[in-house]
Amino acid sequence: MRAVDIIAKKRDGAELSKAEIEFFVQGYTSGTIPDYQAAAWCMAVLLRGMSTRETADLTLAMAHSGKMLDLSGLAECVTDKHSTGGVGDKTTLVVAPLVASSGVLVGKMSGRGLGFSGGTIDKLESIPGYRVELSPDQFIQQLREHGIVVAAQSADLAPADGKFYALRDVTATVESIPLIASSIMSKKIAAGANVIVLDVKVGSGAFMKTLEAARELAHVMITIGEAAGRRVAAVIADMNQPLGQAIGNALEVREAIGVLRGDGPNDLREHCLTIGALMLALAGRVTALAEGRAVLARNLDSGAAWHKFIEWITAQGGDSTALEDPQQLPQAALIEVLPSPRTGYIAAIDAQTVGQASVVLGAGREKKGDSIDHAVGIVLHKKAGDVVQRGEPLLTLYADQEERLAAARKLLLSAFRWSDSTSLQPMHIYEIIPASLQA
Amino acid sequence: MRAVDIIAKKRDGAELSKAEIEFFVQGYTSGTIPDYQAAAWCMAVLLRGMSTRETADLTLAMAHSGKMLDLSGLAECVTDKHSTGGVGDKTTLVVAPLVASSGVLVGKMSGRGLGFSGGTIDKLESIPGYRVELSPDQFIQQLREHGIVVAAQSADLAPADGKFYALRDVTATVESIPLIASSIMSKKIAAGANVIVLDVKVGSGAFMKTLEAARELAHVMITIGEAAGRRVAAVIADMNQPLGQAIGNALEVREAIGVLRGDGPNDLREHCLTIGALMLALAGRVTALAEGRAVLARNLDSGAAWHKFIEWITAQGGDSTALEDPQQLPQAALIEVLPSPRTGYIAAIDAQTVGQASVVLGAGREKKGDSIDHAVGIVLHKKAGDVVQRGEPLLTLYADQEERLAAARKLLLSAFRWSDSTSLQPMHIYEIIPASLQA
Repeated sequence: MRAVDIIAKKRDGAELSKAEIEFFVQGYTSGTIPDYQAAAWCMAVLLRGMSTRETADLTLAMAHSGKMLDLSGLAECVTDKHSTGGVGDKTTLVVAPLVASSGVLVGKMSGRGLGFSGGTIDKLESIPGYRVELSPDQFIQQLREHGIVVAAQSADLAPADGKFYALRDVTATVESIPLIASSIMSKKIAAGANVIVLDVKVGSGAFMKTLEAARELAHVMITIGEAAGRRVAAVIADMNQPLGQAIGNALEVREAIGVLRGDGPNDLREHCLTIGALMLALAGRVTALAEGRAVLARNLDSGAAWHKFIEWITAQGGDSTALEDPQQLPQAALIEVLPSPRTGYIAAIDAQTVGQASVVLGAGREKKGDSIDHAVGIVLHKKAGDVVQRGEPLLTLYADQEERLAAARKLLLSAFRWSDSTSLQPMHIYEIIPASLQA
Repeated sequence: MRAVDIIAKKRDGAELSKAEIEFFVQGYTSGTIPDYQAAAWCMAVLLRGMSTRETADLTLAMAHSGKMLDLSGLAECVTDKHSTGGVGDKTTLVVAPLVASSGVLVGKMSGRGLGFSGGTIDKLESIPGYRVELSPDQFIQQLREHGIVVAAQSADLAPADGKFYALRDVTATVESIPLIASSIMSKKIAAGANVIVLDVKVGSGAFMKTLEAARELAHVMITIGEAAGRRVAAVIADMNQPLGQAIGNALEVREAIGVLRGDGPNDLREHCLTIGALMLALAGRVTALAEGRAVLARNLDSGAAWHKFIEWITAQGGDSTALEDPQQLPQAALIEVLPSPRTGYIAAIDAQTVGQASVVLGAGREKKGDSIDHAVGIVLHKKAGDVVQRGEPLLTLYADQEERLAAARKLLLSAFRWSDSTSLQPMHIYEIIPASLQA
């Protein structure tokens, strides 16, 4: 078998065999197939597409390119969730301890933010002392003892995906559903959980800009996961405006703490209840979504989820006093409340623009490896559908430099679309797949 | 400007600006754009295509990536010809001295063979002493003194093409008309001739398998050349069977000598008269193709072309005694006449298979840099359309090892297609572009 022939076959639109896909993935991972051949292949895949069977074979080949965690000895089910990425998405911070508080294991690896999308690992690192790097043994140990673990993606798992992802980023081959789906699912499958809930975002602040594309990605990922013996469901959730009110690492931790203490923005709480209830349903802990939501709502209101959160963070080395008193989380030097420039209804708050403003402030990265500032960010006081009076607080900026604050302020004002007549609250969850779970 | 954005733009099917194309070509030539980005870009170009304007800009950017020869001080016209490659194509060996014998300058750079396609430089190197490597000054000096020069492609000219070509070869991005056309024309434009005749081959032994593709390639190359101020014409010629009878380097030199001495296979002689007459017509030496053919036919029959051949080869260091007595050219150790396995009409002799047999014998290269044997090859005694009796000599094999001979024999027998009823002589020249020259 020769790499160039496999590239030519995909270039010509043919379906690759399992053996050809394995040859290519193994060759690229081991270095016998160079970057330039992989780049041409990725472009051919992007432009010619892949069948679901090819995508499943690609996913399994990448999953098997490194270590595979075996969590089957810990419990009948270990759950995981994955968000395709967005602005202000702190769901994991709430959902992981919430689900764990009901006795269902949560074992998750997460990534860092890039561009306007935030990353759970960055958010967790704003908690003093929290350890994101765990060995596979430490990961399993934490999960066994506390029923919950959230660590950085291990380089030992699905190393093929790490190589492909870095290459796709610089060769304009990111926007391909087979490549996105296999990248996500190879890591999930290698990480060992047998229940996976996918939080597929759609809208301006998401990778998927249309409901159609989001639905296709969700279906492909579900099929791949099921082919690998996992129980998988997906939520298609809005990312036209940020989720919740806070954007920025420590600010999002504070907001998550609010929800875990029975408070916090309603859209975030609702979103976490839905994702968490799906995890419980797939794990067999409840038989219906409504039952799951009720169980979890009780755990938020009773303090059970909050106590699980403290237990988890402490077990991973985090300083719980900073959680009890969020003033001890990183604080920005400059805080500016932005008054509304007009009276009216907010028709939309463009998530991508808000995400870009957070990058300008230093909360996110322009490129991989850039350092970030955990303290800075934005808190929105109004969301789409709200009415606001001129001069009323619209949002608060948290910054470390005047120039950055000025640039972010300008961007943020451009993110708002206004209406003079009543504007509807936007839909938050568009779909749950499979639909049978919605009942 | 960023390479990744230019890749994305082409990936999405948009037309690149001249500035974007120049940025990409210059960046790749200088090394600031790495192979993997160029590979993704080539695949996007192959699958999305390029407008003729983009292809012309790409060609000029590659032509200007290195030294540009200026031949304008030598004569009003310097002519060049280029074949897109085939099996048994020794046209340059005949046409260059033939055109030069009529007083029109011929300044040409050629390549080496690869795969089943032969290369003029390999053929010339079978003449003892012939120097293929000339500096730009030596190239111009030889052209000024003798009116004819054929040298190896200089690495100083169009270095971008050299880099792109090597990359395309291993990334399945060869078969793209914009990339093929710009590769050919960038070298031709940098080499300085202002008259260029393109010998575009079509058929099993050619790059272009269909008349439609060959026609498109010819039109694109003519447009590019004219945009660069060159006078360009093209012939679309058959390469379903080899041209002439000999395949293999010294064997082809012998056949070319035959034509130059007024003898040789008729299809080769006719082809050379057509290509040569187009060069004379574009150079203004004649006003009609028929007149050009008549001038050149006289030069073949009078010995003028043959004398020019001796002058040229001798001036470039070649041993003219080996031309006067071709027995002094490299000789194969094993010579086997293959009798026809049957009686019948030859319907076709697959050029690609014959070319592969010549590679098996050692006359060509599997991959760049392989050494070749100048003595070995094949001489066909019958061509498509001929009738042959069982046992009559079909072809002669020239080899250096029994095993290679056996493998080539088997391949060669598979190259013949037979018919029991009369089989027409295949068409040799399908088209001359522009059609006005055909009159």
